[in-house]
Amino acid sequence: MNRIYFYLLMFLSVSYAKAQDPIIGFTSESSKEQYSLEAKFDAKLSAENLDTWMQLLAAKPHYVGTEYGKENAEWLLQQFKSWGYDARIETYQVLFPYPKTRLLELTGPQTYKANLGAVPIEGDKYTEQGDALLPSYNAFSTDGDVEGELVYVNYGVPADYEQLEKLGIDVKGKIVIAKYYGSWRGIKPKLAAEKGAIGCIIYSDPADDGYVQGDVYPKGAFKNKTGVQRGSVMDMPLYPGDVLTPGVGATKDAKRLDRKNAPTITKIPVLPISYEDAQPFLAALEGPVAPESWRGGLPLTYHIGPGPAKVHLKLEFDWQLKPANDVIAVLKGSEFPDQWVMRGNHHDAWVHGASDPISGLVALLEEARAVGELAKAGNKPKRTIVYCAWDAEEPGLIGSTEWVEDHQKELKEKALVYINTDGTGRGFLGVGGSHSLQAMVKEVAENVEDPETGVSVAKRRIAVNKVHGGEDSDFKLSALGSGSDYTPFIQHTGIAALNLGFGGESSGGEYHTIFDTYSHYKRFKDPDFAYGITLAKTAGRLTLRMANADILPFKFSDWYTTVSGYLDEVMKETEKMRKEVKKHNSMVAENAYELASDPTKPFVKPEKKEEVPYLNFAPLENSFAELNTTIEKFGEASFLKLSDSKKADVNKKLMDMESYLIREEGLPRRPWFKHQIYAPGFYTGYGVKTLPGVREAIEQKNWKEAQEQIVVLSETLKKFNSELQGILDLL
Amino acid sequence: MNRIYFYLLMFLSVSYAKAQDPIIGFTSESSKEQYSLEAKFDAKLSAENLDTWMQLLAAKPHYVGTEYGKENAEWLLQQFKSWGYDARIETYQVLFPYPKTRLLELTGPQTYKANLGAVPIEGDKYTEQGDALLPSYNAFSTDGDVEGELVYVNYGVPADYEQLEKLGIDVKGKIVIAKYYGSWRGIKPKLAAEKGAIGCIIYSDPADDGYVQGDVYPKGAFKNKTGVQRGSVMDMPLYPGDVLTPGVGATKDAKRLDRKNAPTITKIPVLPISYEDAQPFLAALEGPVAPESWRGGLPLTYHIGPGPAKVHLKLEFDWQLKPANDVIAVLKGSEFPDQWVMRGNHHDAWVHGASDPISGLVALLEEARAVGELAKAGNKPKRTIVYCAWDAEEPGLIGSTEWVEDHQKELKEKALVYINTDGTGRGFLGVGGSHSLQAMVKEVAENVEDPETGVSVAKRRIAVNKVHGGEDSDFKLSALGSGSDYTPFIQHTGIAALNLGFGGESSGGEYHTIFDTYSHYKRFKDPDFAYGITLAKTAGRLTLRMANADILPFKFSDWYTTVSGYLDEVMKETEKMRKEVKKHNSMVAENAYELASDPTKPFVKPEKKEEVPYLNFAPLENSFAELNTTIEKFGEASFLKLSDSKKADVNKKLMDMESYLIREEGLPRRPWFKHQIYAPGFYTGYGVKTLPGVREAIEQKNWKEAQEQIVVLSETLKKFNSELQGILDLL
Repeated sequence: MNRIYFYLLMFLSVSYAKAQDPIIGFTSESSKEQYSLEAKFDAKLSAENLDTWMQLLAAKPHYVGTEYGKENAEWLLQQFKSWGYDARIETYQVLFPYPKTRLLELTGPQTYKANLGAVPIEGDKYTEQGDALLPSYNAFSTDGDVEGELVYVNYGVPADYEQLEKLGIDVKGKIVIAKYYGSWRGIKPKLAAEKGAIGCIIYSDPADDGYVQGDVYPKGAFKNKTGVQRGSVMDMPLYPGDVLTPGVGATKDAKRLDRKNAPTITKIPVLPISYEDAQPFLAALEGPVAPESWRGGLPLTYHIGPGPAKVHLKLEFDWQLKPANDVIAVLKGSEFPDQWVMRGNHHDAWVHGASDPISGLVALLEEARAVGELAKAGNKPKRTIVYCAWDAEEPGLIGSTEWVEDHQKELKEKALVYINTDGTGRGFLGVGGSHSLQAMVKEVAENVEDPETGVSVAKRRIAVNKVHGGEDSDFKLSALGSGSDYTPFIQHTGIAALNLGFGGESSGGEYHTIFDTYSHYKRFKDPDFAYGITLAKTAGRLTLRMANADILPFKFSDWYTTVSGYLDEVMKETEKMRKEVKKHNSMVAENAYELASDPTKPFVKPEKKEEVPYLNFAPLENSFAELNTTIEKFGEASFLKLSDSKKADVNKKLMDMESYLIREEGLPRRPWFKHQIYAPGFYTGYGVKTLPGVREAIEQKNWKEAQEQIVVLSETLKKFNSELQGILDLL
Repeated sequence: MNRIYFYLLMFLSVSYAKAQDPIIGFTSESSKEQYSLEAKFDAKLSAENLDTWMQLLAAKPHYVGTEYGKENAEWLLQQFKSWGYDARIETYQVLFPYPKTRLLELTGPQTYKANLGAVPIEGDKYTEQGDALLPSYNAFSTDGDVEGELVYVNYGVPADYEQLEKLGIDVKGKIVIAKYYGSWRGIKPKLAAEKGAIGCIIYSDPADDGYVQGDVYPKGAFKNKTGVQRGSVMDMPLYPGDVLTPGVGATKDAKRLDRKNAPTITKIPVLPISYEDAQPFLAALEGPVAPESWRGGLPLTYHIGPGPAKVHLKLEFDWQLKPANDVIAVLKGSEFPDQWVMRGNHHDAWVHGASDPISGLVALLEEARAVGELAKAGNKPKRTIVYCAWDAEEPGLIGSTEWVEDHQKELKEKALVYINTDGTGRGFLGVGGSHSLQAMVKEVAENVEDPETGVSVAKRRIAVNKVHGGEDSDFKLSALGSGSDYTPFIQHTGIAALNLGFGGESSGGEYHTIFDTYSHYKRFKDPDFAYGITLAKTAGRLTLRMANADILPFKFSDWYTTVSGYLDEVMKETEKMRKEVKKHNSMVAENAYELASDPTKPFVKPEKKEEVPYLNFAPLENSFAELNTTIEKFGEASFLKLSDSKKADVNKKLMDMESYLIREEGLPRRPWFKHQIYAPGFYTGYGVKTLPGVREAIEQKNWKEAQEQIVVLSETLKKFNSELQGILDLL
């Protein structure tokens, strides 16, 4: 052993001594027990299991309604049972369209018929499964048969349509072609339809997702010219889950909407294509050259159109109800069986889904196996742990949403947290979730070792923040938007939630393509499943600490800093908007836009904008001031010293705290989304909008609604404050 | 006439009433005369002349030493004479290498021989002149025959080599391939050689200069796959002009360096190529994928290497002295014949040079014709006007530099300003130069009408600044670096200078290629020469006002604001550097870089950097404080009320003011560059470095030199201050 290595070991042992500090929510004594439990838990984890199970679960395509999906669910059920869980499959009947007709052709000035085919890759046997590979399409596109001139709309997000307006280009009656990224995909056809387009093509540009990013599959991990990203375009920011049964479980006999009236099916047909297929369409466009930031990585000059490229798009779907099989596995708590720690990952995939979702699912399974074996050996959790393997996440969080809607009442009473994972890879820990859990997540992250560097995953995350981030490099939770199964828990039901995974060193272009296979995963993602095990350690600790804590580890000072920071942000954004409108209006008055424009190029003279009024933010500022006082007191309170029965009273109240952040009426125009702090953006999709009622009203310049939502939110915060005060009153 | 049009005319006449305000440096009465002169001047200008002359001058290639170049010079001479000028050709014997051997091949793992050919374009007869088209090459590349592994170095600027160092990649013994742009081209082989490379290829990437920017020639204006940018790689930041005669005119009998010892010839062979030729070389690279910002527009994954691509580069040049024919045309001043207003544009081109430089030259010619005819009609300028058509600008500002070096003594006595133009196009006025002239340039710009919008060119420039720029949208002069013939005047001799042109609406990829033809210019640049005429109006006013002013229009308050702003900038940059070093060192100490890096990718652990010491900027701050006081008094002084003889005394002193900003010893390690406020960057080339002695020492972390240069510069400013004070003393 050389000297430097010796000192390094010294340093590590010192660093791990810290792991014996009391755990948040645990007394000194129970902390020791918990550390000992976690050491046993770690010792049970085997990377080999992850590898074996991934090969099994991702052997064939297993999207909703497939035989292999059903086999996987049955296998999962048997596994959970064998580990001592009380497990069952709960099946919902959900609308899930398969493609019947997919036709996309350039009809002028040249002709080209899009290939749309899945091309097998040498060295990846999974890609050779022919017809079993689900053809590329966007689920919940409407049927349609349209023909029109083509317009290139960049990412097809609101800012892009503003740009088109400046150029005097209208998409009314046209078919748009948009790049993937820049927003969740479903926003593209939604906005295009709002603007009057009659069809939408989405493609993966090599600049974002192809050879510009790195070598393409099979040489490298990135998207090759035939790869197509599948995915749902259901209007999930309105409501996720089965399109026919909003708000209620899609049980066999549930009352269903007529499909014609289902508001979350797109208004226009939409189809995803590869960059090889996109190239002839883009090359056939004329009209203005696309703005610099719109240009992609294909070897051509990006023009906007409209036309002369003319496009024919015909899509037909097989609109059938399919069974969604959720696997639910319960390990009853020894002391508080009616307090549920929930933990989930979906099992359905677009094709094989080795990465998405099987990499996360096998980590969850290994975690569940270890937890089950510990329980068998006498280490039963105090609270009930519920493992969930969801079906039908891909088409729109359907399996989880229907289950949550179906079990709404019981969940509100019993669920204290939902911990979600999904695909995972090699690299750095990323966690989003309820900020009342930030302190405990950070503590867990400090206790889990990063397999590549030997430091804690928290320390590594902070190092990445320092090197690649801004000024503030602290370990933090991001706010949850949407995109995985936590949504029905936190945003519809008000259950505290977390979503975690590793990544940053394993990027590729396989997402939702036929290339998301075991072969790809083993070469480019997490070859030895070291990070799969690390995820099991991290999520397992979160689960076990929530299950065994003496006082539930909800802390509110980080919550306060973060959420009051959102208010500062909204206020600053409003000021910025005010300044921009002022500047814009003065430039319109001075004719500056016209003078700065090239008269040989299209130009539409901009109009003055409505001035931004001063909003009364005082109700929110006052609510936060009150919260500040309460939360400071809360930080000083010693709940661990209370009697067991008092502790139980505190916990019963603590587990409900997140629910006071929801409002039964929901957000304006989307009552399904009830959380007042976090929501997916109405025009960003997965992307989060914090303080969504207020923020989106301001962004949409709906000043009246903004002022109303300020009051609504301040009342929510007052209620939250009085409930916190109620806990303090127990002292 | 409709009503709106009527009001518009009303508005225009009101706006032009302003043009009757007194002109800076003119009494009320002489202002009226000057306005009347300018109206007559404008009336004489004809766009047809510009068109006819461009067709003539750009009919054939006319690079240094060609027969056609000589014919152009003779024709220019005759024109000037016919307009009443005392004109002559002054010829210098300058080293100018033609290419003899150009061989570039990929020798492994595949083979490819670069085409390097000029491919004619249908519809552009000028591109069909075969052997007359100067083959693509970089003038003042050394001869060489090298073979080695290839490394992609992005733009080949200092930051790129820092990045390579982080990746552990060394270019020693390798051949580098760099993109054009990011710096002046000569920096690329200079830095590559300093880093140990043995050869350098430069290519135009379509992302910067090709189909990504717009449709390519002949469909559009941009660089097609065979276009190659020629250009000099002489180490001009050391000294421009003839490589064999630094500091003295390259007259027939001048003492010459041995070519082997000429320091401005590159140390390694360098060749420019097209993107079609570059693609196989780039595609043959392996090694790390290039950082995101390094990736270009070719349809491939950009790798850095080194190798396995192996390259053979063989270059031989015909190292001959060639005649450089400067055409000098003098119109003697009626009152102050020994005060010269100088005005120049080069006449040589890489190939046809319709845009560069003929578009600027024909505007100068039309201006000179009108000025000459006005003089013939009795409107003689008070001061002498000297029109110059320079040869051999392209290979390194040679014609102008040799002439300035040859006439150094006389110029120092007599020249009061040098006004430069070069290629010009459609769009917005851009002017750089001595900031003591900012106020008068702005006034001129307010008096010249933009042909596309009818407002003044100043107003249009400000509108562009507002729409596309930052907070401060005022009309301003940029600082002069290098890149055209003003350099020997301002930076070597201390003569106030301006450089102006129009552009921003006529970009293309023709620069230094065989596509810079009359056909291209007429389609894409300034089809009706409206901006050529506008340039003649602008430069003509500048020239005539300098020639006729009662008090020379040098003003120092803008100068003060700008130049003291440079000090603020340098101080802020130093602070920023200090913070960055501190942050970097703390991250090294914490091992953050290593923790944030992917262990499967190359990583070199960074070392701690030397802390940035606190420099004593007080000498400069004190000098600026003194200048502030003097310049405030200067602003209040009424020189126009002085007697004629006193005015003459003031003018004699004013015309020398710029010369007090030079220091005979020059800048450290490059004595040819003597100006203490503006210089081309030693590692940016054309790009300016203001307060170069201080700024570059800081950038190079040469703290001792930085402190010395602070003192040197403060003494220069003290001298400048006392000379300004001397002018005030005349009051």
